[in-house]
Amino acid sequence: MGKKFGIDVGGTGVKIGYFDNDELVDKFNIPTNKENNGSEVIKEISDAVKAYATERGIDLNDIDGYGFGIPGPVQNNIATICPNLGWINYDVKKEFNKYIVCDNVAVANDANVAAAGEFWVVGSGVRNLVMLTFGTGVGGGIIVDGKVIEGANGAAGELGHIPSKIEGGNQCGCGNTGCLETIASATGIVTEAKKALLESNKESTLRHSADLTAKEVFDAAKSGDIVALECVDQLGKYVGIACANIAATVDPDLFIIGGGVSAAGEILIDTIKKWYTQFAMKPFKDTPFEIAKLGNDAGIYGAAYITTK
Amino acid sequence: MGKKFGIDVGGTGVKIGYFDNDELVDKFNIPTNKENNGSEVIKEISDAVKAYATERGIDLNDIDGYGFGIPGPVQNNIATICPNLGWINYDVKKEFNKYIVCDNVAVANDANVAAAGEFWVVGSGVRNLVMLTFGTGVGGGIIVDGKVIEGANGAAGELGHIPSKIEGGNQCGCGNTGCLETIASATGIVTEAKKALLESNKESTLRHSADLTAKEVFDAAKSGDIVALECVDQLGKYVGIACANIAATVDPDLFIIGGGVSAAGEILIDTIKKWYTQFAMKPFKDTPFEIAKLGNDAGIYGAAYITTK
Repeated sequence: MGKKFGIDVGGTGVKIGYFDNDELVDKFNIPTNKENNGSEVIKEISDAVKAYATERGIDLNDIDGYGFGIPGPVQNNIATICPNLGWINYDVKKEFNKYIVCDNVAVANDANVAAAGEFWVVGSGVRNLVMLTFGTGVGGGIIVDGKVIEGANGAAGELGHIPSKIEGGNQCGCGNTGCLETIASATGIVTEAKKALLESNKESTLRHSADLTAKEVFDAAKSGDIVALECVDQLGKYVGIACANIAATVDPDLFIIGGGVSAAGEILIDTIKKWYTQFAMKPFKDTPFEIAKLGNDAGIYGAAYITTK
Repeated sequence: MGKKFGIDVGGTGVKIGYFDNDELVDKFNIPTNKENNGSEVIKEISDAVKAYATERGIDLNDIDGYGFGIPGPVQNNIATICPNLGWINYDVKKEFNKYIVCDNVAVANDANVAAAGEFWVVGSGVRNLVMLTFGTGVGGGIIVDGKVIEGANGAAGELGHIPSKIEGGNQCGCGNTGCLETIASATGIVTEAKKALLESNKESTLRHSADLTAKEVFDAAKSGDIVALECVDQLGKYVGIACANIAATVDPDLFIIGGGVSAAGEILIDTIKKWYTQFAMKPFKDTPFEIAKLGNDAGIYGAAYITTK
């Protein structure tokens, strides 16, 4: 209910959504100004919000809340470390309130916020949801009893860093090896496919690609390419096992799969489910998996949603 | 605050604790009557509570709440399946209210309840806690923001069924293979030690044990026995990795290690931490591990605690 802004702060652009009565009315983008360790980002967002409000005749006193999704861990509205923007222990609410005064400013990690967005639109009957986002990296968000969980260090839902390949895993950006992200991110999928091509002498259309992409791996698999099918199977295995792990911990009603890689659709979901079913315990063996519905809008929806919690 | 009963229902005995002003005043046991699919268990508990109250001059109208820990999954006070007792979709609160009327009856899984008990005594500063219990089986409980989480199927915190040994894992009681329980329960530790002895030709004091126990494995490791040390290291590896998984999901303030196996003490904690640190992501690499404080009383404490939530 009421009027809200949902603000999804990314490393290159900021997406701003205006919601009235739980409906998205408008959305627009501004570039992310990363100069001076991102010191102008919040000011420029507030300028954009003010300009939009003026243009549409919206009185900012009527706004119920502002929600922010931030590309890094967040604790109590503080962005603890945000390498993309240069923020360290940055009080987003306090900074925003310098320009726009509102008590209800909610701040959360961007992957958590995306999970909240999907949760918002998934409808009733679901109270617990886990979202995994497969893109350049692998992110996640955990909703327990309708609420995004943050964790002791703002790192709940860092599902890309579930240890997956224990022996011989690739180096992850986080410093460890064998994290789920090294296998299941768009980059990870390509790295693993190239390794599979080297280790196999089977013919594959993937051998003829000049600059292999995750999409090509899925497309080849859909066309029956054996090496590509093996790659998708390995990917599904690690994701499925990670999900069985997650389910033994929080037992969600539903898994949502999002991010650019999720465009692969049914073949991805089916392969994940095949492996999940093998390793998940009986009480949660039938937990459903769905493709995310909101695409790139999950962040603004979720940011608006967290102002209501 | 107030007066409560905490009731820990086990497969062979029921432990009942009486709490006044958050202090345990008395505890006593009755045997679990498993006849007729456990139809008399709740009646006999209420009889024991009434007898205790009469003896001590306690007016049952002054009792604020009754909490139950149940050996099986629980949803909304219903024990969905409880093979030890013979209960299926058993409404514990409704049954108890036939004999003792009280609105505040809280029911939860026994491992979740034990986690709640440890949470209660751990003191302030901790809002999120994960407890793992290593005994005949491996159980777990997850506290998020001060509250036990139950999950969509009452199976949140089923940490013994985290898939751990993906290739060549042993059969688990749950029907899957390679669950954490197959490695880290008292039985699992012995099975793995026997396998290690067969696969190695190193001398070991364990070879001279007539009926090997988990305690003997730890004792031998503490005395420097190489095979036993390798067994403890493998155990710590799988538990440490499982904890890194759990932390990427819920990011607790603290891990608590309980159950009979936890009597091994420092060597167990140190080995788990060594592996945890290697696989855990930076934000939660330093999450502390502690041995459970309440021992067999965790269930009655936790059962009393959940009446306050």
